[in-house]
Amino acid sequence: METLLHTSALHASLEDDALNSMNFLNEIAQRFPDAISFAAGRPYEGFFDSGLVHDYLRRFEQYLREEKGYDEAQVRRTLFQYGRTKGIVHELIARHLELDEGIIVDPESVVVTVGCQEAMFLVLRALRADERDAVLAMSPSYVGLSGAARLVDMPVLEVAEGPDGVDLDRLEEAVLGARARGMRPRACYLVPDFSNPSGSQLSLANRHLLLDLAERLDLLLLEDNPYGYFGADGERLPTLKSLDTRGRVVYLGSFAKTGLPGARIGYAVADQRVATATGRVGLLADELSKIKSMLTVNTSPIAQAVIAGKLLTHDCNLYGANEREIALYRDNLRRLLAGLERHFPRDGGSGVSWNVPRGGFFTVLTVPFPADDALLEISARDHGVLWTPMSYFSSDPAAAHQLRLSYSQVTVEQIDQGLERLAALVTSRQPGSA
Amino acid sequence: METLLHTSALHASLEDDALNSMNFLNEIAQRFPDAISFAAGRPYEGFFDSGLVHDYLRRFEQYLREEKGYDEAQVRRTLFQYGRTKGIVHELIARHLELDEGIIVDPESVVVTVGCQEAMFLVLRALRADERDAVLAMSPSYVGLSGAARLVDMPVLEVAEGPDGVDLDRLEEAVLGARARGMRPRACYLVPDFSNPSGSQLSLANRHLLLDLAERLDLLLLEDNPYGYFGADGERLPTLKSLDTRGRVVYLGSFAKTGLPGARIGYAVADQRVATATGRVGLLADELSKIKSMLTVNTSPIAQAVIAGKLLTHDCNLYGANEREIALYRDNLRRLLAGLERHFPRDGGSGVSWNVPRGGFFTVLTVPFPADDALLEISARDHGVLWTPMSYFSSDPAAAHQLRLSYSQVTVEQIDQGLERLAALVTSRQPGSA
Repeated sequence: METLLHTSALHASLEDDALNSMNFLNEIAQRFPDAISFAAGRPYEGFFDSGLVHDYLRRFEQYLREEKGYDEAQVRRTLFQYGRTKGIVHELIARHLELDEGIIVDPESVVVTVGCQEAMFLVLRALRADERDAVLAMSPSYVGLSGAARLVDMPVLEVAEGPDGVDLDRLEEAVLGARARGMRPRACYLVPDFSNPSGSQLSLANRHLLLDLAERLDLLLLEDNPYGYFGADGERLPTLKSLDTRGRVVYLGSFAKTGLPGARIGYAVADQRVATATGRVGLLADELSKIKSMLTVNTSPIAQAVIAGKLLTHDCNLYGANEREIALYRDNLRRLLAGLERHFPRDGGSGVSWNVPRGGFFTVLTVPFPADDALLEISARDHGVLWTPMSYFSSDPAAAHQLRLSYSQVTVEQIDQGLERLAALVTSRQPGSA
Repeated sequence: METLLHTSALHASLEDDALNSMNFLNEIAQRFPDAISFAAGRPYEGFFDSGLVHDYLRRFEQYLREEKGYDEAQVRRTLFQYGRTKGIVHELIARHLELDEGIIVDPESVVVTVGCQEAMFLVLRALRADERDAVLAMSPSYVGLSGAARLVDMPVLEVAEGPDGVDLDRLEEAVLGARARGMRPRACYLVPDFSNPSGSQLSLANRHLLLDLAERLDLLLLEDNPYGYFGADGERLPTLKSLDTRGRVVYLGSFAKTGLPGARIGYAVADQRVATATGRVGLLADELSKIKSMLTVNTSPIAQAVIAGKLLTHDCNLYGANEREIALYRDNLRRLLAGLERHFPRDGGSGVSWNVPRGGFFTVLTVPFPADDALLEISARDHGVLWTPMSYFSSDPAAAHQLRLSYSQVTVEQIDQGLERLAALVTSRQPGSA
């Protein structure tokens, strides 16, 4: 092979910092496979069950026969042929959203996607019409959003998080400031419930105020909700979408944490009305579907059937289907917080502090030394514990002394042992230590 | 819902002609469900079998246990957790390529994708670094390529097909002309075997010449090969990739026609070497993988397992696994050609002519009247037969009098009856008919 391409002649997204950081993290995890990982934001694996996938596929076939009245040829065509670009489980998703979230949507406004990541891409591709268009995101923020934005050359305007997630004043300022500079901020991306990476949750009062602000500023809200069921106290706040009476919210759904990650099924609810030059009015979902037809054509109906089978098995009550997971993540969070209190007592002079999330997968530790890639490598090699530098999620200088701990994929024993290792790392960084 | 977006403020790809044409075609097909369809380029459905999917999944699990030595937890993690961005069936794909195509590749250069469409997008996104970058494609050409190009705002330079597919002189002219205009033609997309829509096949001599030309012009070749197994005479020509000794070919693979469309599994073989600014040299596959991580994260391992199970069931000999399909498409082509001879004898004055493809899914009919959307609607409504206007695939004026007939998804009875209906349509268009 002689041909050499040069990255300078490839798309700039390939030089994305967050991306290269994530690759570094993966590399470290591979080099130190015995390290306890507080790094990966993956769901717990202990409940995976090979047999269930077969049951789910059969359950969906039964649904096609009995509820849809399909004959065997139609069942096979639905599962195995090219299919509807917007997906084949939209009606079940709409049923689930009504039951679990109180979100009432026309199934036609649902676009089933290859994970939530594709849904993000579709929305950003649609909204990035010219070089003025930008998207707002909280800082710190999920790297998947900035990655998708990079692919369509769309600037991400960072808005520093407030105590409960969104700081409304800063958001308004950012929008008006961007407009004054000739930009068109089209949408604001956020995870209102137990955000990644900060674990913050937007209060009910601020949800209403945010919806009002979006209306006033003519802004869409991109609500990403992978963790909403995993509140530690059993209380749930209504999603923005369920409160949205003015079509301001595009809801980005994921079954990776509540269904099965290996199905790679997500979706967008995009019931916004779109007018074409000819005066025809359609749904934003149909515009996203056009983009999807050029990107992945359609989402594997077999993969969709697995998620649909799980939904049907639980009468579309996905919150109920996640009872074990909800309890496990709650117990893990408590264990982690108790361990942090033990290892880093408030008056112990360690200089370590953390936030106390009300649920989700993540908490953020602030430490009195830089938590960078170099330290991560030392942590993995010398102490056997992995975490994620917060600098991956934010350009804020404060993030340089912060790290994200994920407690979703570990056992309680690993939490205890991992925190001991982390404490040893912190001790080794104290002034005066060797 | 009050919010109104306007397509003028959405991305220009949404106004793509080919896309809107395809939507029109789908709409017509839905409005006239009893029409016989020579329009859809879908694989034959008669061999779909629900039970096989379960067998395939179990076969892949067995492979993970026995060949990879995985324990049960690793098996479940591989199938159900987030996974490797480049995919989990790359080794089996490499084994299949060696056996079936004589293509020897490092499995690390394989990126498993959500259908071949995602593979196209990844390559074009990587190659569209700035506004000079363009891709060449034959005219007529598959609309999926122009769709993916639209999503990254990449111009498609059309090169009129020669008798066997690629006209090398015109290709060179197009590249040099584009360079003279300040453009950077990065790659040429083509389907060497039984192209969509024209059914053309590139001769062996021209395959060698094309590879030489690509080397001389410093051009990549994007070889898309969904139909290569479906030669009507049992002879197969070597793929460009198998002849490529200089890293000129990115191979775009699809299992939609040879595996199962509903798995939505495709792949790119991208073994080109890429140098970064820091001097590190990697594989183009790894750059594509980075883009994929921002687009769909990874391809559903469950869907990959279905295809892997089929490969394993047939010892990775996919050509052999498609014996029934190869025979069926061959018989359908013969039946179609015989029917055309019967209905439109050469000296019968109908003014209808067609090409005689050596395999694949498609043939092209030239008719003495415009074969446009208006005629398609008349054809569906008054005559009960569907086809695809060639103007969807080419801006060449000659295409306005051509239509594509697909014979892959029809029975022989439908071919006979469909041609009768088509003949009635042609008769109704003859001068002097009512």
